[in-house]
Amino acid sequence: MLNLLLVDAELELVPEEIAGHPTIGASAKRRKKPATKMLLDSSLHHSAMKRLAEPERRGRPDIVHFFLMVALESVLNHRGLLRTYIHTRNDQLIAVDPLSRLPKSYPRFVGLMESLFIDGRVPSRGQPLLSIQAGFCFEDCLHEIPHSETVVLSETGESCKLKDCFRDRKDLLCVIGGFSRGDFRSDVLSAADRVISIYEQPLTAWTVASEVIVNYENAFES
Amino acid sequence: MLNLLLVDAELELVPEEIAGHPTIGASAKRRKKPATKMLLDSSLHHSAMKRLAEPERRGRPDIVHFFLMVALESVLNHRGLLRTYIHTRNDQLIAVDPLSRLPKSYPRFVGLMESLFIDGRVPSRGQPLLSIQAGFCFEDCLHEIPHSETVVLSETGESCKLKDCFRDRKDLLCVIGGFSRGDFRSDVLSAADRVISIYEQPLTAWTVASEVIVNYENAFES
Repeated sequence: MLNLLLVDAELELVPEEIAGHPTIGASAKRRKKPATKMLLDSSLHHSAMKRLAEPERRGRPDIVHFFLMVALESVLNHRGLLRTYIHTRNDQLIAVDPLSRLPKSYPRFVGLMESLFIDGRVPSRGQPLLSIQAGFCFEDCLHEIPHSETVVLSETGESCKLKDCFRDRKDLLCVIGGFSRGDFRSDVLSAADRVISIYEQPLTAWTVASEVIVNYENAFES
Repeated sequence: MLNLLLVDAELELVPEEIAGHPTIGASAKRRKKPATKMLLDSSLHHSAMKRLAEPERRGRPDIVHFFLMVALESVLNHRGLLRTYIHTRNDQLIAVDPLSRLPKSYPRFVGLMESLFIDGRVPSRGQPLLSIQAGFCFEDCLHEIPHSETVVLSETGESCKLKDCFRDRKDLLCVIGGFSRGDFRSDVLSAADRVISIYEQPLTAWTVASEVIVNYENAFES
């Protein structure tokens, strides 16, 4: 089994401290939602975000959307050999049912994530497709997800070809950064069995996910 | 070199015949654009689309967006070994500069594609990142794109493991369907050197792209 964990994902509701900003207000009015029940989105809330810490990296639900689309629609997931998790900047852990068919439409995906943050699960009844738990730092995530080896993907790691990494089909936990700028906020390196780099430059989260998934699948099939 | 061609992509402006529908009108008013200068989008225009032929498959810019994000952000593209093209249902051919950094934000991507359809290229001056030409049926695309072998990916093809397909590093043209339902509208099979299936069920266009890209890259590196 391959476990993919997107770590420090820039996914959060609009923080209280900028809820009164005119940009956020306009966005809330258009969507007919209270400001603090909307996802923070840098493509819409850029000017308001200047008041936040680390404004240049926050508010990226699009990264999570691309990552989930790559993971859930993969052959490996269809074969039942992938588990997908998201850890957010606020130490929440989102578990994703492998059978979820999440919205391809970005606005609908955003609506779904907002319901998840507010209700703790979606759908609100029956088997949850997505559920979220607070108070899960990276180390707590490691305890929660069954695995035998933790591999962190980082351009600072040891250079490695993934096709040579997965030959023994272990129950792996692969850790991928859920942000577009800067470094992991969580201390992922000290808990890693291996830190590997698949390219000399930073890659998007979904590119790394795609490389890991296809190469793991190839190893599993061989 | 790997050439990826998304064929019969469901990417078009709102057709004249449904431009007067109230759903389209509301969407145009919100966006302050003439109806026929907006992309057709099934997540917004579903009720109006019932009047069109093949309504269940049309209006899917999201598929093109995911496909381009997977292709352009891939390691193979960063290494300069990938060329990406889109053929639309209306026989237009979109050429994509491999150095393009297209918007991750879906609304911005839609705006960019609308400019492309209206102006024929983006940006309007200087080296185009995207350019579109009309009157290119699938066969014309084959003549336009330099390659030595055409491989069509289809669940009806011969079952094959991609890692075994790309060992000789040819200049390949891989053809992927740009739609979510039904079959190719273009006659892709008669022009194919090989028709291969990598999974017994239909896969999304970006899943197939991801499998092709990573496996080609592995072959190139070996």
